[in-house]
Amino acid sequence: MSSIYGENIKVSIWGQSHSPAIGVTVDGLPAGIKIDVEKLHRFLGRRAPGKNKFSTARREDDKPEFLSGLKDGFTCGAPLTAVIYNSDTRPSDYEEIRFKPRPSHADYSAHVKFRGFQDFYGGGHFSGRLTAPLCVAGGIFLQILEGEGVSIRCAVKSVAGETSEEKITAAVEAARARGDSVGGVIECVAENVPAGLGNPMFDGLENMISKAVFAIPAIKGIEFGNGFSCASLCGSENNDEFFMDGNQIKTKTNNHGGILGGISSGMSIVFRVAVKPTPSIGLGQKTVNLKTGENTEIIVSGRHDPCIVFRALPCVEAAAAMAIYDAALAARKEG
Amino acid sequence: MSSIYGENIKVSIWGQSHSPAIGVTVDGLPAGIKIDVEKLHRFLGRRAPGKNKFSTARREDDKPEFLSGLKDGFTCGAPLTAVIYNSDTRPSDYEEIRFKPRPSHADYSAHVKFRGFQDFYGGGHFSGRLTAPLCVAGGIFLQILEGEGVSIRCAVKSVAGETSEEKITAAVEAARARGDSVGGVIECVAENVPAGLGNPMFDGLENMISKAVFAIPAIKGIEFGNGFSCASLCGSENNDEFFMDGNQIKTKTNNHGGILGGISSGMSIVFRVAVKPTPSIGLGQKTVNLKTGENTEIIVSGRHDPCIVFRALPCVEAAAAMAIYDAALAARKEG
Amino acid sequence: MSSIYGENIKVSIWGQSHSPAIGVTVDGLPAGIKIDVEKLHRFLGRRAPGKNKFSTARREDDKPEFLSGLKDGFTCGAPLTAVIYNSDTRPSDYEEIRFKPRPSHADYSAHVKFRGFQDFYGGGHFSGRLTAPLCVAGGIFLQILEGEGVSIRCAVKSVAGETSEEKITAAVEAARARGDSVGGVIECVAENVPAGLGNPMFDGLENMISKAVFAIPAIKGIEFGNGFSCASLCGSENNDEFFMDGNQIKTKTNNHGGILGGISSGMSIVFRVAVKPTPSIGLGQKTVNLKTGENTEIIVSGRHDPCIVFRALPCVEAAAAMAIYDAALAARKEG
Amino acid sequence: MSSIYGENIKVSIWGQSHSPAIGVTVDGLPAGIKIDVEKLHRFLGRRAPGKNKFSTARREDDKPEFLSGLKDGFTCGAPLTAVIYNSDTRPSDYEEIRFKPRPSHADYSAHVKFRGFQDFYGGGHFSGRLTAPLCVAGGIFLQILEGEGVSIRCAVKSVAGETSEEKITAAVEAARARGDSVGGVIECVAENVPAGLGNPMFDGLENMISKAVFAIPAIKGIEFGNGFSCASLCGSENNDEFFMDGNQIKTKTNNHGGILGGISSGMSIVFRVAVKPTPSIGLGQKTVNLKTGENTEIIVSGRHDPCIVFRALPCVEAAAAMAIYDAALAARKEG
Repeated sequence: MSSIYGENIKVSIWGQSHSPAIGVTVDGLPAGIKIDVEKLHRFLGRRAPGKNKFSTARREDDKPEFLSGLKDGFTCGAPLTAVIYNSDTRPSDYEEIRFKPRPSHADYSAHVKFRGFQDFYGGGHFSGRLTAPLCVAGGIFLQILEGEGVSIRCAVKSVAGETSEEKITAAVEAARARGDSVGGVIECVAENVPAGLGNPMFDGLENMISKAVFAIPAIKGIEFGNGFSCASLCGSENNDEFFMDGNQIKTKTNNHGGILGGISSGMSIVFRVAVKPTPSIGLGQKTVNLKTGENTEIIVSGRHDPCIVFRALPCVEAAAAMAIYDAALAARKEG
Repeated sequence: MSSIYGENIKVSIWGQSHSPAIGVTVDGLPAGIKIDVEKLHRFLGRRAPGKNKFSTARREDDKPEFLSGLKDGFTCGAPLTAVIYNSDTRPSDYEEIRFKPRPSHADYSAHVKFRGFQDFYGGGHFSGRLTAPLCVAGGIFLQILEGEGVSIRCAVKSVAGETSEEKITAAVEAARARGDSVGGVIECVAENVPAGLGNPMFDGLENMISKAVFAIPAIKGIEFGNGFSCASLCGSENNDEFFMDGNQIKTKTNNHGGILGGISSGMSIVFRVAVKPTPSIGLGQKTVNLKTGENTEIIVSGRHDPCIVFRALPCVEAAAAMAIYDAALAARKEG
Repeated sequence: MSSIYGENIKVSIWGQSHSPAIGVTVDGLPAGIKIDVEKLHRFLGRRAPGKNKFSTARREDDKPEFLSGLKDGFTCGAPLTAVIYNSDTRPSDYEEIRFKPRPSHADYSAHVKFRGFQDFYGGGHFSGRLTAPLCVAGGIFLQILEGEGVSIRCAVKSVAGETSEEKITAAVEAARARGDSVGGVIECVAENVPAGLGNPMFDGLENMISKAVFAIPAIKGIEFGNGFSCASLCGSENNDEFFMDGNQIKTKTNNHGGILGGISSGMSIVFRVAVKPTPSIGLGQKTVNLKTGENTEIIVSGRHDPCIVFRALPCVEAAAAMAIYDAALAARKEG
Repeated sequence: MSSIYGENIKVSIWGQSHSPAIGVTVDGLPAGIKIDVEKLHRFLGRRAPGKNKFSTARREDDKPEFLSGLKDGFTCGAPLTAVIYNSDTRPSDYEEIRFKPRPSHADYSAHVKFRGFQDFYGGGHFSGRLTAPLCVAGGIFLQILEGEGVSIRCAVKSVAGETSEEKITAAVEAARARGDSVGGVIECVAENVPAGLGNPMFDGLENMISKAVFAIPAIKGIEFGNGFSCASLCGSENNDEFFMDGNQIKTKTNNHGGILGGISSGMSIVFRVAVKPTPSIGLGQKTVNLKTGENTEIIVSGRHDPCIVFRALPCVEAAAAMAIYDAALAARKEG
């Protein structure tokens, strides 16, 4: 199986970059939830290309159409399906890559797995375009969670190793100018998540957030709280002591990132992900010809984002919301 | 749900630190697999306390007994259950923590989730002791994978920020002397994993390995390939070019850590995890009294590991083997 | 959760009778399977209304469009989504039933479950129309199984208690004439299913076929082999003795219906289902007004099938194929 | 997969007739539920052999031991595991059947599936003995449901086609006397199940009850409400009209058996199952020798129940409780 997520909701994502459409089905949404479609469009707009200065020029008017699951703007209890039609499918400019796997794309591993039957146009089901339906589902979960007081928000921590806006802009522009790309680090903070969500062992919040987040192409690492830094600390430095803040139990520090034993502690959930530089670059790269078994070279044509870190922000929020909402539904069973 | 893992095998882990027993049920093992019990004991021995100089003195003779699923040493197709009996259950020395959550343990979050009914003795189901049944299951998967040519092996990359054996030993001894603890980083390498295992999106190898690994208490981060380092690189630096190595397609570098689009590329799978310093330390720490709602202090009694990084090595191997074996079973369906 | 089926394939059905579309996503189909679309249309045609003399006049041109999962007519390994657009949505003639649950429909139980937010038009997600996407998925599984030599075929055993074609026709016509409806019994036979498919306990073929078949509205019973008749027999009468038929092991009788211990025996799989008379009838019926809490009456308007037994034949085949194909995929993991 | 049930609870059953133990793990029980162990023993006593005049003489002192999940008699939120040790394992009197599959047992289909590695002693994982852990889990669910006002109770409708106690006794005694066996029909009634439990399509109550019930060996059919009888009725006869009974909405008749569209209607849930005659009989039967491929004969030695219908009553209650409790937990998420 591949493209279904969740224990208490089931989010099923389908489509390829150049199939007639891409979409998502969400099974398990309670009935009676009002969806603010305009707000959802704004959320999706943050992911859309062409909305920030660093993104690709491919026009994606990614307004989802709801084919099921809504009645008069409210969820009706039936599975909700949203679809985004692909307008510019099967362009000729992807034929080049058919037998020349692009370095650090999924072209080669997909070729082996699907024995040549994979849809290679635009990366097929592996395309970053598939984060659009993820954001449709996640945007809905974010609305529901917001109604319960939970906010989830991502910010860019660094791009190309730079942390100031000025230097980031310069690094991205320099990469674009030479046909190259840059990566970055995103931090996600979920506030007001009630204590007690998540589970021990395999369905802990860290497990489930990770499982969701690695669905976003280009993410290669995740760390919670102070993450890898904790490995250099002593327990006496890293432990978060409890104290009473009025009637509330809090920790003075939040090295644990709001999750202990897989379960939310009531402190802010904090995690960071590493986004690798977009593998599509305009420079010549060495690869092999899968048909002839010979070494060759590829220049990935078309216009590509020199930096997808900014567009990835809502995607990470969506993934986090999906995991946290699933845990919130689970908690209702335990009362 | 919490303690069940897998799509094609189901690994169900149960037990508490001081319940009569802990154990694991593995459903979905093909029939006819020979289990080398002696080899499994040796694998479990690497996890057991008292086997290295840094570990706790609690005697855990963790020889699993197989209650089902085996006939004459071979798997018989029925669910396999292994049990490890707990000998020294419910000691008085845990009463102290009943209403005083230990900093950076799961005591508090479990208390909220289970509304006071959780088994607090020794951390209950959240205890590091539950990695023993994980290693039973994982040890079996490792044997099966080894029979298919796959090897999975972990190594310590650093402890307390130190990388040389001498300095690591000094850091651990210093921590022990002052009643403190230290964390570290573990690297796991899986070799000879065939290309084509794993899935796009949510059941990718990165997703599934992460979901497994975060079941090990104390792990707070994971990164694949060059991980967080990739965020500072350009695409032209980070991309792994393909070339023909005789008849085999390989990449010159392995920044991607053997996984592209969630699917193995045939290169070694490489990931690192951050292990936080053991939260149980012998120093006084501030906490709250859950009954009275007052600030108080706790000194965690008993003898505790100043460093669990070494004992965690087989646990991470077990978790990785579980994820990779699940993907290997999945791949059989696709042929 | 509700509308997702399967362990090794995942079939996710969505849509409401009068939502913009209905559809199905199949996740887990191996890549490289050729879909014969014309053959699929013919299969769907057997379910479509207006194709036999007893069915409703609502025009349903149920040609599915494939939005994803296919490339050049072959499955590509990505989730396959097929959609059927609803053309005549939200007619005024359903307003009547909004607060008057139709006897023996899901109107009332859905109203309670979804607290008034359900899509009541045409039965919403509970409509028999949702068997169209089931047949799309099942039709594909039937093609795959046929390629492996397995045939699955249903036949009408009785309608309104009658077994001859002549009397059945008379019974249906009489029911139609007086605005009433009739039920019937369908027998399904799956031939050449290899021995060894299915599992003990909960994922046995009987369990999984039942789970699939009860998704078809109006089915109220299922029995395997000689079914309820076996309850009146002695073991010596009911047991199926084995014998060698050339090199093959067979049973002389097939009272067990091809399934022993949840696992196929190599004999034909035989089961029967009871189809209740269509609850939509043209006669006045007593019901309650959900808004006022008063007793009232309802006459279900529109033209309705007096007998859906014939149209249900491909639906039962589809459900059986789904269960058997899932078991066939599972068996590949065990080799 | 095979022996795991449930969406909101996960019930994992393991063990073989002659393995060291059999048992069950229940993952997902809310914390804080008091288990009445004495009451559970009484419930299990109804299933135990030797407790009624028709059952086998094999002594099974099936008192489960709880290895995890309980603290001071209450569930603690961790997975609950109960084990029943097998005392008289691997008797010589099963060697006979090793290569001679018993007619209408799972011996042959298991042999094919597990390629000769199955545990054939006493039927292994397919043994009726595995209903003991099912009853442990089900007995707990019954207690929880009872606390919520729901009662589930089975009764024998017929044995060997007879319905009076006197004739049933005579039929069973006659079967015993000649080394034969008889089957029967069981009716299960679940009262006070609130309206609104269950789901459309695949997770409907009929689907989920069927999936649970067919795990009990010997069950070959299930029907809800008036079941197969409905197939001979007109809609006007079969439809259950609604009326106000004080403030409550009820149906005058209950042909639908308390389930409409997969969802409980608030009326009693009623279903019947067909229990085939015990396949183990003392008479000579024809079979094949799996080693030599020759026709041969088998006489199943040992003492066997001439009628398991009475012992199956609590098993069916357990299966129904498991399905209904799972649906009850699901409903909590929807509020």
